[in-house]
Amino acid sequence: MKKIFTKTGSSSESLARTGIVETYHGKFETPIFMPVGTQATVKTMTPEELKECEAQIILSNTYHLYMRPGSDLVEKAGGLHRFMNWKHPILTDSGGFQVFSLGHLNKITEEGVTFQSHIDGSRHFISPEKAVEIQNQLGADIMMVFDECIPYPSDHEYVRNSVDRTTRWAKRCIDAHRNQDKQHLFGIVQGGMYHDLRKRSAEALIDLDFPGYGIGGLSVGEPKKIMYDVLDHLMPIMPQDKPRYLMGVGSPDALIHGVLRGVDMFDCVLPTRIARNGTAMTSEGPVIIKNAKHFESWIPLDSDCQCYCCRNYSRAYLRHLFKSNEILGLRLLSIHNISFLLELMKGIRKAIKNDCLIDYCQEFYRRYYQEELVFNLIT
Amino acid sequence: MKKIFTKTGSSSESLARTGIVETYHGKFETPIFMPVGTQATVKTMTPEELKECEAQIILSNTYHLYMRPGSDLVEKAGGLHRFMNWKHPILTDSGGFQVFSLGHLNKITEEGVTFQSHIDGSRHFISPEKAVEIQNQLGADIMMVFDECIPYPSDHEYVRNSVDRTTRWAKRCIDAHRNQDKQHLFGIVQGGMYHDLRKRSAEALIDLDFPGYGIGGLSVGEPKKIMYDVLDHLMPIMPQDKPRYLMGVGSPDALIHGVLRGVDMFDCVLPTRIARNGTAMTSEGPVIIKNAKHFESWIPLDSDCQCYCCRNYSRAYLRHLFKSNEILGLRLLSIHNISFLLELMKGIRKAIKNDCLIDYCQEFYRRYYQEELVFNLIT
Repeated sequence: MKKIFTKTGSSSESLARTGIVETYHGKFETPIFMPVGTQATVKTMTPEELKECEAQIILSNTYHLYMRPGSDLVEKAGGLHRFMNWKHPILTDSGGFQVFSLGHLNKITEEGVTFQSHIDGSRHFISPEKAVEIQNQLGADIMMVFDECIPYPSDHEYVRNSVDRTTRWAKRCIDAHRNQDKQHLFGIVQGGMYHDLRKRSAEALIDLDFPGYGIGGLSVGEPKKIMYDVLDHLMPIMPQDKPRYLMGVGSPDALIHGVLRGVDMFDCVLPTRIARNGTAMTSEGPVIIKNAKHFESWIPLDSDCQCYCCRNYSRAYLRHLFKSNEILGLRLLSIHNISFLLELMKGIRKAIKNDCLIDYCQEFYRRYYQEELVFNLIT
Repeated sequence: MKKIFTKTGSSSESLARTGIVETYHGKFETPIFMPVGTQATVKTMTPEELKECEAQIILSNTYHLYMRPGSDLVEKAGGLHRFMNWKHPILTDSGGFQVFSLGHLNKITEEGVTFQSHIDGSRHFISPEKAVEIQNQLGADIMMVFDECIPYPSDHEYVRNSVDRTTRWAKRCIDAHRNQDKQHLFGIVQGGMYHDLRKRSAEALIDLDFPGYGIGGLSVGEPKKIMYDVLDHLMPIMPQDKPRYLMGVGSPDALIHGVLRGVDMFDCVLPTRIARNGTAMTSEGPVIIKNAKHFESWIPLDSDCQCYCCRNYSRAYLRHLFKSNEILGLRLLSIHNISFLLELMKGIRKAIKNDCLIDYCQEFYRRYYQEELVFNLIT
């Protein structure tokens, strides 16, 4: 398939690398964090605000858009970019994760999955072909194959069968894909916490020559140590010339550990979700803005941050907005948290170019977590 | 007191006029509509968005800020302008209206009002002196006297006593005012629906030589015809060289009827409140965005509107946001409705300058209400 990734730099101390991904709606730099616009909007934010936060690519959820307003309507709008007024790259997931986690699951067969809507209980069937058809209608620059998302923990035999089915579904997704010149379909490596099954999944999908690969089924409740362990074993066998996307991961520690192991792309609702709950990520760690100690605090959320929120508003004002249930508070913390993670990724890219990534991450870790980053390069 | 109003034009067909009001934080043009930022934020909007909507002055509520976060805190922030990051004129009401309508009222005496907070039930006492002290702490460019707000309907004797008390309170407010060079204190004409009492109130307050006058106690449940009738009798005796502010009024018809009778300033939560309920004001009348007919509508809310919402988003997308409970929907309709009313006022100012106000209002009325504007100049 079409080559979309160009490696532009690497780190001598880790598997981290920088790169450029080219899509129909423009390029983006890696490693990158993708803000999540579940329902065709990154919650509380305009596209212009996302650009001011230096977002380069956003994610939207196929399951949610299929349910509401429907992929037919988005297609009639001229696709998701035009519908939501975001002119830059978009990635859509396949809906698999939500079908298995959000909807009321009725039946999984070789053909596909029957489930009930979380909105109105209506019955739906999604197959690999249908997931690709919906994503073709949405028109995102990067699409994901429809995969089986298994619970954690699951036993070895169950996971092996699931991995093999996900590989068969991946082939069907490739065959169903109708817009190969403008939309790039990524495979998804599954395999739970079993190194042999991760390898089995990766090798089978690498044979199918996808332009990029998601790593699914992590950050699903397992200890982070296990996630890093899976990545330690998996990443060295992933193709060098294709982007690797660790799905659903967005805490600063996991971003750093992912990058060190060679991950290029991440997404997570975490920064916007905790923002709406009143938690800001700052260079000195999380700030719970409703805490009484911020009542008379005239400093910004983060003195090191240049975002719109930190340039213009005091913690005292932000606390007032949250205590008064004012929407502007949700907006300002969302802007800040998105800026914060994108700034972290920008710092990471720069540190890789200057080959001082471990130092950069160590410094971040000490200030944010008040502890040492522990990372040993597996070679 | 200091002269702050300069009349710049008038209409030969009505009592309407244009003018400039000068304040410590800049000038604004009249007739003007003031968006309401109850809790030190115009709900869902940033100061920059308000400026893009061409807001020139906003209103904030003394009662709410006194309750939360407290006027001491706002004073420590350097005043309301700095606290909320709005660099342009602000008007604060006196808290009177909210004390009489929102709080649980305990007792009115000549000294002041005892009431309980609508937030936590705590007991408070506000006198004319206290209302002015709080507003001096907030630091708005225009302050309002503490007045007694009576229920509608009330009998003649009750209203006469209330008017006389409001006059006595007005004098006490003047005496208590500590920041006369930067903050301008307006009187408030009361008198219910009784022409003789409105005249009595106006004459007593005119003697006190305020730099501007509020007209209170209207839009409190009475038929609009009665409100216009009160204005017909009251406005001709109001000073020509001072701004007149019709408090709490913001529907397009009432703005137009107020302007025709010589009102210069208006405020109301209406445009932002109905926006959050999904109603947009457009040049062809109200649009209920959740209606099924907008499901596949690719036109903007209002084809005549140049606001951020109308330049970038379709009704179909806006409907999707509202159906999905997305905050961006509340934001976009708020921006539109504020823009719409400010654009109406701008058109009115232009029409006064060109002395074609009745034609302008008639045209607006036909499109918005599908009916004729009925207005007879009382001379």
